[in-house]
Amino acid sequence: MNSYGTKFRLSIFGESHGPLIGVVLDGVPAGMPLSREDFLADLDRRRSGAKGSTPRKESDLPEIVSGVCDGHTTGAPLTIVFRNSNTRSGDYSDFRATPRPGHADFVAERKYRAFNDLRGGGHFSGRLTLTLVAAGVVAKKMIGPIEIRARITELGGIPRERLNCEPGKELGAEGAPTLWDELIDRTLRELDSVGGVIECTCDKVPVGLGEPFFDSLESQLAHLAFSIPAVRGIEFGDGFAAARMKGSEHNDCFVNGEGKTATNGAGGINGGISNGNPVVFRIAVKPTSSIAKKQYTFNFATGRMEEFVVKGRHDACIALRCPVVVEAIAAIALANN
Amino acid sequence: MNSYGTKFRLSIFGESHGPLIGVVLDGVPAGMPLSREDFLADLDRRRSGAKGSTPRKESDLPEIVSGVCDGHTTGAPLTIVFRNSNTRSGDYSDFRATPRPGHADFVAERKYRAFNDLRGGGHFSGRLTLTLVAAGVVAKKMIGPIEIRARITELGGIPRERLNCEPGKELGAEGAPTLWDELIDRTLRELDSVGGVIECTCDKVPVGLGEPFFDSLESQLAHLAFSIPAVRGIEFGDGFAAARMKGSEHNDCFVNGEGKTATNGAGGINGGISNGNPVVFRIAVKPTSSIAKKQYTFNFATGRMEEFVVKGRHDACIALRCPVVVEAIAAIALANN
Amino acid sequence: MNSYGTKFRLSIFGESHGPLIGVVLDGVPAGMPLSREDFLADLDRRRSGAKGSTPRKESDLPEIVSGVCDGHTTGAPLTIVFRNSNTRSGDYSDFRATPRPGHADFVAERKYRAFNDLRGGGHFSGRLTLTLVAAGVVAKKMIGPIEIRARITELGGIPRERLNCEPGKELGAEGAPTLWDELIDRTLRELDSVGGVIECTCDKVPVGLGEPFFDSLESQLAHLAFSIPAVRGIEFGDGFAAARMKGSEHNDCFVNGEGKTATNGAGGINGGISNGNPVVFRIAVKPTSSIAKKQYTFNFATGRMEEFVVKGRHDACIALRCPVVVEAIAAIALANN
Amino acid sequence: MNSYGTKFRLSIFGESHGPLIGVVLDGVPAGMPLSREDFLADLDRRRSGAKGSTPRKESDLPEIVSGVCDGHTTGAPLTIVFRNSNTRSGDYSDFRATPRPGHADFVAERKYRAFNDLRGGGHFSGRLTLTLVAAGVVAKKMIGPIEIRARITELGGIPRERLNCEPGKELGAEGAPTLWDELIDRTLRELDSVGGVIECTCDKVPVGLGEPFFDSLESQLAHLAFSIPAVRGIEFGDGFAAARMKGSEHNDCFVNGEGKTATNGAGGINGGISNGNPVVFRIAVKPTSSIAKKQYTFNFATGRMEEFVVKGRHDACIALRCPVVVEAIAAIALANN
Repeated sequence: MNSYGTKFRLSIFGESHGPLIGVVLDGVPAGMPLSREDFLADLDRRRSGAKGSTPRKESDLPEIVSGVCDGHTTGAPLTIVFRNSNTRSGDYSDFRATPRPGHADFVAERKYRAFNDLRGGGHFSGRLTLTLVAAGVVAKKMIGPIEIRARITELGGIPRERLNCEPGKELGAEGAPTLWDELIDRTLRELDSVGGVIECTCDKVPVGLGEPFFDSLESQLAHLAFSIPAVRGIEFGDGFAAARMKGSEHNDCFVNGEGKTATNGAGGINGGISNGNPVVFRIAVKPTSSIAKKQYTFNFATGRMEEFVVKGRHDACIALRCPVVVEAIAAIALANN
Repeated sequence: MNSYGTKFRLSIFGESHGPLIGVVLDGVPAGMPLSREDFLADLDRRRSGAKGSTPRKESDLPEIVSGVCDGHTTGAPLTIVFRNSNTRSGDYSDFRATPRPGHADFVAERKYRAFNDLRGGGHFSGRLTLTLVAAGVVAKKMIGPIEIRARITELGGIPRERLNCEPGKELGAEGAPTLWDELIDRTLRELDSVGGVIECTCDKVPVGLGEPFFDSLESQLAHLAFSIPAVRGIEFGDGFAAARMKGSEHNDCFVNGEGKTATNGAGGINGGISNGNPVVFRIAVKPTSSIAKKQYTFNFATGRMEEFVVKGRHDACIALRCPVVVEAIAAIALANN
Repeated sequence: MNSYGTKFRLSIFGESHGPLIGVVLDGVPAGMPLSREDFLADLDRRRSGAKGSTPRKESDLPEIVSGVCDGHTTGAPLTIVFRNSNTRSGDYSDFRATPRPGHADFVAERKYRAFNDLRGGGHFSGRLTLTLVAAGVVAKKMIGPIEIRARITELGGIPRERLNCEPGKELGAEGAPTLWDELIDRTLRELDSVGGVIECTCDKVPVGLGEPFFDSLESQLAHLAFSIPAVRGIEFGDGFAAARMKGSEHNDCFVNGEGKTATNGAGGINGGISNGNPVVFRIAVKPTSSIAKKQYTFNFATGRMEEFVVKGRHDACIALRCPVVVEAIAAIALANN
Repeated sequence: MNSYGTKFRLSIFGESHGPLIGVVLDGVPAGMPLSREDFLADLDRRRSGAKGSTPRKESDLPEIVSGVCDGHTTGAPLTIVFRNSNTRSGDYSDFRATPRPGHADFVAERKYRAFNDLRGGGHFSGRLTLTLVAAGVVAKKMIGPIEIRARITELGGIPRERLNCEPGKELGAEGAPTLWDELIDRTLRELDSVGGVIECTCDKVPVGLGEPFFDSLESQLAHLAFSIPAVRGIEFGDGFAAARMKGSEHNDCFVNGEGKTATNGAGGINGGISNGNPVVFRIAVKPTSSIAKKQYTFNFATGRMEEFVVKGRHDACIALRCPVVVEAIAAIALANN
């Protein structure tokens, strides 16, 4: 179902090419200052246009249609909508015959039969992450002093550490192109796409969020993370590397009476419950499925394997737009505790 | 909260050293044959005693106390309990002063204050996975033709492929000790522990299970996976490797009208919905936190860093007991769809 | 929280004097024909304008903004919104000082503090029942052959049986005024209001809907019924009269192999589960709280008891608009099973 | 499904004639003193044996099997079980052929097919209310200063006011038999049963519990009330009488700055939210369905209408045992807010 949460609940709706998409937020406390301007910075971070992102431009301005009065939240359900525009439905007409590899076309056709709205990916569109970002803005306000920051740590296999450039100059900045710049350029030339890894750190998380079963903080974060299209994996603290460590290496010993630990292999969570150290997790984002490169796939209309090219505008690396979405789901999960 | 699911709901209860632990299953259809014997094989796979597992022995026989009549499920809530025995509470007495690194002692103390039941890890104990395995047995019956199989694919960094032995002889079998045997022996000698990776494959999953938001099949599986103590990460299909692939490498092209794909980088799931190919995911299990090796950690009673040794019986590699638990959560997630 | 349901879930949002109100419906199957016209008949029945109802006129035309494509539901969340217009915010300015007797002004002020949107009752407004009616239209389509019919059976203490007029002529029809006509006229002259009883009958309900605990069909219907503002009670079958009957009078004996019963004192439900006989329940609706007659109540600003008159336009009998809302909640409850 | 609640969640299980019945309570705060003795007074009030109640005697002693350590709640799920004994399964053997009028036999047979546990009503048994009473004891502790009191206000149509006796002497007390005593005696002689009305008053409820949609306090109370077998209706404050009142009569005017009202026609709830005045509601309980008097009903085995007598031991008036159950559901609903 298209809703999540018990204390802070979001219900999202809309299709890429319908009149509007939106999200209803329930459980927002009364009295929080909130205006349209509060959303702009995070929405900007998600917006298309950066190198490697689709050239589609939209205003994507949020409209708060309920739950706010005189600049403050009222305690009633808070609804934010985004109008769709600049859509080119024609691009998507052949997907019933040739479901795009890596996309939901095939499963949607089977699950919803001919009635699925294929246009622009319909309800499966990455555009729906706009609503997650909007929900994240509200959630960030709700969780107060907690600070959340996500960023790309690896792009197409190249770790951030190898870039050797100043922060903020990793991609598309003036000056010498970095390895990431070169990778994106080469990928665009090859009509292909690349994936990436995003690391998210939540500082100042109080001790005690999460439950032993079944709503561990990891469970809640992972549940939401896999609602972001294109996510293939999530790991906490040492993550998969922990499986190759000894207990004496992986264990986090305490160093003071506040529960601070010398290392943070657990990613700030023990027994499903935050331990006061930074909550740290990483997300694997697959390479964009829509590529202009030729693919050889089954045509369900002709019953034959055929060459196939995805038309239209697409991101060379969808991961570039995801850090703010990852921050949003982190904030949403924390606000639900 | 300690329950999960909407169509198939489980509520677990109990503490390691209380009179009994159990699980209430709701949504089990009427008319399924079910007896105590159905649980024994999976419970055996989880049981302690294998090389590297704790020597604690228990009968761990399940008792079906509701929901079954004349050998068949009735449609009413199905409750299975396990009596606790062979407990040695004395082992756990110092954990308030020195919360064990890697354990929930510290967070439990803060969240539930002095009232937390520390004995044997209380409600946080790995023993609670008994109830997950029992729920998994029922779930496996419910999902009928779907076949689920999980196994260790990597132990302490040594992949199964390097073992070069017959299936079933990886560990503790007669004949020449494998690399895994040697690893466990060395780990026991060093009073340390190791982690591992478990891969789970679900065959014959029908097309259409899962929802785009927020109950993608990955979300449901991940939510449950992080309820298993000691899990540090989960990845689907190509997983984190996908972040290092190109779209043309990672995309799964269709090869026939049933939706079979040439590769399975997506792990059998597109847009959150099963696509009919095997659902494949991997779980990273941390090394057992309880080690007999000396650790240097904070003593909350004395206010000083001190040497610390975890007493009692513990697994050298908790991952060895987890495959059947991973199968259980896979079955539970599928039964909830 | 402002959502309801597991299989068919609705989330409502909006305030009486905000830009729009709406409802998100999740769990609507793909492939149902649905257009704006389908909503008009039921919305008309709820609309103001009938004798005794407020003269406020609005178009109240629904807009389907997601979940429908090419005239059919897509299986994605279905969202229906109504724009607000013709609002007179000025009428509501004094309610902080003098919370209206019978209204939510006082509790909203305490629960949401100064941030509650008082305008037009805000999120508490009876106008929100528009969204219930819209949800009911979709639910009625989903539950197929089941037929639901609600009607006023008693107005201001005068039962329908005493009217002695043709069906459809009970109120505001041409010809001789009925006792109900006279009651409404007199009530309007007295600047007062009256209540009423609504009976709802659901025919062709299949056997087996509902659960013994805690989601009995009565529980589900009652839960939703008390979401309708102004409802004071609900009873099934013989209802409160059953408390004055003997078992031999109240029991419903079976008369055939389909489970038809000679009487229907249980209102079509046994053990929380529909038994195939008509589901019958009655709802008590209080007299409209907003009356133009003088009331003597506490002024929180002056700290004194004072005379108070509710200004603005109001229904003499809110019950008149409720039958279609009661049908809606019956359909919603049934669609959730 | 057999669970209820979000903040305070209960899952009940068990059948009348299985080994045990029980309830798992989640969301109980850590540190509350709790022992078996705390349950005895309320369990006594529910117990059979009073005049008009079934002569079946059972110890019905609760066992706390999880969630309590050293006499205090731990914050982990709290489980209470009751062993079944003194059962006479033989009494229930013919119910497949002749489903008892007023019982769930017929619907259970259809919903769960032959697999339903008919013995003693199985999971539908009134015995399951034991678990509600136990949950209520815990809930009452959780809601602290709130005081809940339910009592019979009407028996077989005879209101308490007509008894003209001292409190506590209404039934079965020494001295002159009351009208209620005579009614029960006559009913027993006639092999019949009678119903009753129970009124519940909750004092010291703070302002602000409940939500406008869909979790109004009335919705929550009604949802739980209809989980009690034999309940036919619920009304708040003036209830159904409100439908016969004028607004000027039914409205509750405020008399002070705390929100105290001159009357309490709303039963302490406005807009779904508690207003600080006593929460008052009434429950209609049907006459016991199991009567020893001859009934004429369909025999599904012979396909004919036949005379039918319910054998075994039964209450002449089930309402007599319900006040403590009604208190329990009131406490549960309040604890969930």
